[in-house]
Order: sequence, then structure tokens, then C-alpha cells
Amino acid sequence: MQEFAPTSRTRLKRRRERAAYDEATVYAFLDAGFIAHVGYVIDGQPYVTPTAYWREGRRLYWHGSSASRMLRAQSSGLKVCLTVTHLDGLVMARSGFHHSINYRSVMAFGTARVVANAAERARQLDRFIERLYPGRVALMRAATRQELKATTMVSMEIEEASAKSRSGPPKDDAADYASDVWAGVVPIALASLAPIADRLLKPGVKAPASLSMIAGRRRFDDALLKLARRSR
Amino acid sequence: MQEFAPTSRTRLKRRRERAAYDEATVYAFLDAGFIAHVGYVIDGQPYVTPTAYWREGRRLYWHGSSASRMLRAQSSGLKVCLTVTHLDGLVMARSGFHHSINYRSVMAFGTARVVANAAERARQLDRFIERLYPGRVALMRAATRQELKATTMVSMEIEEASAKSRSGPPKDDAADYASDVWAGVVPIALASLAPIADRLLKPGVKAPASLSMIAGRRRFDDALLKLARRSR
Repeated sequence: MQEFAPTSRTRLKRRRERAAYDEATVYAFLDAGFIAHVGYVIDGQPYVTPTAYWREGRRLYWHGSSASRMLRAQSSGLKVCLTVTHLDGLVMARSGFHHSINYRSVMAFGTARVVANAAERARQLDRFIERLYPGRVALMRAATRQELKATTMVSMEIEEASAKSRSGPPKDDAADYASDVWAGVVPIALASLAPIADRLLKPGVKAPASLSMIAGRRRFDDALLKLARRSR
Repeated sequence: MQEFAPTSRTRLKRRRERAAYDEATVYAFLDAGFIAHVGYVIDGQPYVTPTAYWREGRRLYWHGSSASRMLRAQSSGLKVCLTVTHLDGLVMARSGFHHSINYRSVMAFGTARVVANAAERARQLDRFIERLYPGRVALMRAATRQELKATTMVSMEIEEASAKSRSGPPKDDAADYASDVWAGVVPIALASLAPIADRLLKPGVKAPASLSMIAGRRRFDDALLKLARRSR
């Protein structure tokens, strides 16, 4: 099993049972999401920007306008911590102290660099679209040269990563199990709802069948993971 | 209307129509969430840690084990960017370029400092529990001195903040509206499901009526916002 060797940046100091460093777990958590929180430093000041991302092997990608401050700062080769979090539940214990959250998260560390090659940028944009909307690239017009120029793309090889998670019921102090306080879990999940067609849609245009893979999903994270495994 | 005056850290360089700096918008986005991504810098390396937070006025709070690396680093007065993001939808346009995400997010900047006073820590822990579970503090045993000692709490006055959002249908290039490509929005929302009682629950213990305020909510963000406004 491939591992991201834990270092001082990623090794959990406490609650080690909640940590994993194997690629399978890290990739499963990454592939179940599509929005990351990207942390970077400009002049000693931390910034955390939510951004859509996608993955190819050990490499993460994100993109945006060429005018974006974040992307311009990252273009020179910037240290980045990219974090993805899934919220799975509220854990209600019998004492305030043992209340907790069920979650899955990944912290991935690396150095972000601009994808300078326009052909590679075009290829990765198609991969990003296909990752969410299988078959969609073939239906749309190709990106124009202008559009590719206006798109800054950043990629980062994952140098180190750690996955953390908590699941299951509350764990209370032994004495508190006799308490009259209700305890349990309120599950939480990201859901996708029924699609809303654009009012300006050309008459007669039907929604593609593949839309059902991402729309109307009670567990959008599962749908994303399934799509990611399909596209491999 | 109270404003967080935009500075070089928070002023949007582009897409200004998506930005807001007024307290009402910033607080509405913050109060609809409970997990933030906290960015900070240790030895030049950015870290982004997902963590539960709560708010009192212009001040944000979060907490964790006294052994936590993040919290120990923050205790000395650390520059922080705390970001909260709500995902509202996938925006499918007629061209790849105009695909987008509907979202609401806040970036809040400040300096994190440890809450050293134990009584204030106890008061804020109660506020945190009540923020999610109204009436629950009165049902539970009080926190022990040991527990309060084991809890490091950090607070940060919001020095600057900006809210960003996108909503609504795709916006395509004029020529593309004649396209046969389906366009629209797939709404996304964080949902809470029916509560799962702990298997070790003392026989006869019933779920409190207030649980219905957070469990089984198709829009968990709306439920949180409602709870936040109620507790004021």
C-alpha cells in the first residue's frame, strides 16, 4: 500500500487512531469532494480561499481568473496547504466535553505552480468538466484561445498528506452512561437536489441522462466518489 | 449599516458585484455555518485546519485539546484567516468557460489569542452547546475543572472580513444561447437527517423536543441561522 510518509507537518500528535496516511484513504476523501480550502501566505499573512479542485494521480489542480490575487501569488511557486472536509454528523454526548463532530478531512501539502502549457491547460479543463459531468465536453464548443488565456491554472504535487476522520456514536465517561441525557448522532450530508433548467434554454433541449449521476443525490459525496472511480 | 472597511487584504480585485463588507451579510454567512477552515502560519508553512466555531458579536471562538499543535501555535497571538463556505449549487453553462459554483463564503481576518480565564471559557462552552442544542446545557452535568483545563479556547476579534457569493443561473456568451447544450443549476445543500440514538442510551430516555430544530433539516444552514438569531 502506497503511503504519504508522515512528517512533522502531518503526523498527528494526539488521537492517532483518527489519522491515516495511505493513498487509498487520502484519495477517497479527496475524490468525494470538489471544493477545497486552499491556504497560502503572502507577506506573512495567511489566506484561506475556497476553490474547486480536481486530481490526477498524486497531483491536485485548481484554476480561476488570471486576474486572481491568489493565483498570481501562487504562480511563483508558493507553499500551500489544501484541505478538504466532509461533515458527517453532530455527535451529542452526555456531557458537554464529549460532544464532537463526525467528519472526514484531508490536509495536503505541496508547492503550487502555474500550468504554463496551454494544451495541458485545455486537457485539464476537460478533465475537470468530465469529472463532474461525464460526457459533457463532447457536447460543448471547445474553449477559445481567449478563454484559455484568461484561465490561470495551478497544480501541486502532493508532497505530504494526512487524512483524519471520526465516525460512530458518542464516547462518554463511564459514570455518565447512567445519565438521563439523550445521546446520539445527528447525521449530516451534502445533498444535491433536482436540476433547475435555465429559463433561457433553447426550446426542445433536454437534460442529458448523465445529469442523474450528480443531481438528486442524497449523498453528493458518494456520487462524486463514484464518478471519480468511473473516470479512471 | 455597520461595515468591515475593505482593505488590501479583503478588497475584491475583480467580480466586485459578488462582494459585501457589511456586518449583516458577514454575520448571516457565519451564523449559517458551524465548521470553519482556519488558516495560520508556522515557520512560513501555511496550515488549514477545519474546526467548529461560534460567534459573539464581532468575536469568533473555537477550541480543542490543550495538546493541539494548532491551538498551541495560536496561543501566542497568531495571525489567522478564518473562512466559512456554503455550497449552494453547480452552475452548468453552455460553454466550459462559464461553468461556475453557487456559494456563500466569508473570509475573516484577525489575531487569535487564548481565552485564559476559566470562567469565561466555561461560559463560552455553554454558549457553543446552546448555539447548536438549545436548552441542552441545563440538562447536562457541569464541566469539571479537569475538563476545563484540558480545553484550550481561542478567540479572535474580526479585524477585517469580506463576504463573497454567487447565486442564480449560468451567464453565457450571447452567441452560445443558441446552443443545444442543456444549461441550468444543480442545487446543493447541507442536510441533517433523522437522529440516531446511542445504543447505550439509558432505557426510557427520550430525545428532547428541541432536537427537531437541528435534525431532519433539508437546509441545515437555514436551521443554524435560525438558531443563531433565536439565541440573541
